[in-house]
Amino acid sequence: MEKKEEICKKTQKLFVERGYDNTPMSFIAEELGLSKGGLFHYYKTKEELLYDIITNLMERNYVPLLENAREINDPKQRIIYFIRNYTKLMANDNAAKIVVHEAQRLYPVHAEEVRKIWRQTFELLSDSLSEMQRSGECKQLNSKFGAFAIIGMCSWIFYWFDYSRKESVQELSDTFVEILLKGFDTMDGSDVAD
Amino acid sequence: MEKKEEICKKTQKLFVERGYDNTPMSFIAEELGLSKGGLFHYYKTKEELLYDIITNLMERNYVPLLENAREINDPKQRIIYFIRNYTKLMANDNAAKIVVHEAQRLYPVHAEEVRKIWRQTFELLSDSLSEMQRSGECKQLNSKFGAFAIIGMCSWIFYWFDYSRKESVQELSDTFVEILLKGFDTMDGSDVAD
Repeated sequence: MEKKEEICKKTQKLFVERGYDNTPMSFIAEELGLSKGGLFHYYKTKEELLYDIITNLMERNYVPLLENAREINDPKQRIIYFIRNYTKLMANDNAAKIVVHEAQRLYPVHAEEVRKIWRQTFELLSDSLSEMQRSGECKQLNSKFGAFAIIGMCSWIFYWFDYSRKESVQELSDTFVEILLKGFDTMDGSDVAD
Repeated sequence: MEKKEEICKKTQKLFVERGYDNTPMSFIAEELGLSKGGLFHYYKTKEELLYDIITNLMERNYVPLLENAREINDPKQRIIYFIRNYTKLMANDNAAKIVVHEAQRLYPVHAEEVRKIWRQTFELLSDSLSEMQRSGECKQLNSKFGAFAIIGMCSWIFYWFDYSRKESVQELSDTFVEILLKGFDTMDGSDVAD
């Protein structure tokens, strides 16, 4: 069991650096100091390895975030909690790339498990926005589009963030909360042109 | 030349439906009613074909959007124009998936050409936000993060948008302009908690 954890940890690093497609099992074995047969003893296919890595990341990071958010009664504070902590999750660990980008390589039955968690995330956000709308705290926009606006802005981080500059994570999460809740604008008037 | 256009057009559709990795040259030839040698006469490698498809899409859609935005003097109207039309571009044509997602498969020298256009897009947005900040129209947030917030929210569309529901494109673009400029919030007070 410990050996599998070690294999996952090191392979995760290789997938982030080289991409899943560009990292054959023979290369993984070599980097781990194992024979191909030795690696095969623990993982029969590269997909199994990817599945274990993604499952570990989801269970360690994403599921607790979702559960903590669910426990917050006030929908606005729930949304703010999610934006802040999902942004930090994406910016603190470049393994986010594997979860968001490489999950499409999973076999359909495994991909479905991951999609289920994303679906719950989406529902948490769109339900929270709807709840805010009922109490007049959120404007009357399409709450599904609003939920995807949050997920998109934050998930995109792995495409551009400089992971050597961790000191800016707090500023990034403050900025994204501010933009999503209140926008760029300093004006009160409605001058959004067509 | 006409034949190459036809090949690109049909292959683009295959790449959207099946993904680049999952579409071998032999399959493309078959779908086009060509022999492998016949396809090879026009395109020596799959990468060449991807490069032509992406270059066509960039020149037809993305570069004009960037050029039109640049001609708008007022930085706020420039930002609004970009959000509105980039959203429409992403939601009107699912070929956006190839430009955003498959460009990583290009050879480095080709990928660099695409990256150059994204860099110009990023600079247009962050410069516009800085300009708005100088005239007091945008709050004092990190304009680089602001630019990536726009690009991320809009680029994410291809991951979730239902391309069979084109009638919602206008609502989506209105919603994204509203969120980015003014946020979800209906309140004036500053109650964004830590």
